Formats: sequence, C-alpha cells, structure tokens
Amino acid sequence: MIEKLSSEQRATQIAQLDGWQNVEGRDAIKRQLKFADFNEAFGFMTRVAIKAQEMDHHPEWFNVYSNVEITLSTHDANGITERDIRLARFIDEIAAGK
Amino acid sequence: MIEKLSSEQRATQIAQLDGWQNVEGRDAIKRQLKFADFNEAFGFMTRVAIKAQEMDHHPEWFNVYSNVEITLSTHDANGITERDIRLARFIDEIAAGK
Repeated sequence: MIEKLSSEQRATQIAQLDGWQNVEGRDAIKRQLKFADFNEAFGFMTRVAIKAQEMDHHPEWFNVYSNVEITLSTHDANGITERDIRLARFIDEIAAGK
Repeated sequence: MIEKLSSEQRATQIAQLDGWQNVEGRDAIKRQLKFADFNEAFGFMTRVAIKAQEMDHHPEWFNVYSNVEITLSTHDANGITERDIRLARFIDEIAAGK
C-alpha cells in the first residue's frame, strides 16, 4: 500500500517540479502544456502513456489540438504519492525536450 | 469554408451514429467509451489520432485509465459539420471492433 506524502514532503516535491499546481477541491496536481501542433502533442502523450503503463500509474488528461492538461493523483492513497512525483518528473523532462 | 449542418441534417446524421449526445450549452456532440484497460483505451486513441491528423480535424478528448470521452465540433463553422459526422463514424466503427 502506497502512502500519501505529508504536507511538507508534498510542498517540497512540488516546488521542484515545473509548472504543476494544486487542483482546487481535490488532492491532486495538474499541469497545462502547449505544443507546436497536434502531432507534437499526441507524440508527447504517447511517450507518457508508455511510461504510465510501465509504472502502472496513469494520468487523467485532456487534449485539444496542441494543448494537453494533465492531472495526477493516486486513487489508492486518495492523494499525492511518490508515484505522482515520479510521473510528473518524467513529464517535465520530456516536455523540456530532454 | 465548411458549413454547419442544418438542424434536420444534424438530427438525421446523429440518429445514425452510436451513442453520441448533444453537449449542453455548445454546438457539439460527445460520446463516452469504456475499454477493458488503459492499453486498449490508448490504442483506440492512437487510431483516432492518426485518422484525425489525416482529416486535419481533431477531437477534444479526456482519458482516465480505461475511459475516454470525446467531444466533436468544427471550430471554423462554430458547430457540427460533415467532418464531425465522418470522424464520429470512424470512431464508432473502431469502437465496435470493425
């Protein structure tokens, strides 16, 4: 059973991420990303999908054309866990072109 | 310039689709789909993405794990056009395993 991060851990970890915000009314974080076009946006989503499947930890996400909004939370823990931070870090790395 | 379908055309076309509903407050249609798991849901999305790119007509969609919600509308026409119906038909066909 994976455990929720403490408030301090959560704040420290999120501060090290790139552009993630708390979701109002839920224990979740989200990031909005803008790409050049749909090809680039969906290519990004495909990389995240493969990583998510490998981690068995999946995002909630919305896409329209070149825009992607991703929400992360761990349902089993009812909040943010180390898994969300790991997936967020991966997203930040590929979004930054690393 | 692509034109919006008339009310009659729109109603007739939507009645021939599988599970599409009007979106409240917008001239758009949506369908919710449920798959066996994330692999199947994202595989479906990938097929739709390739078709959408070919048509240069893209969906608005939300995914969480095995659930996909797709909204279609033609921004240039500010409503439902033949393009939305064509993409909806493709979605219905692959969702039905054809």
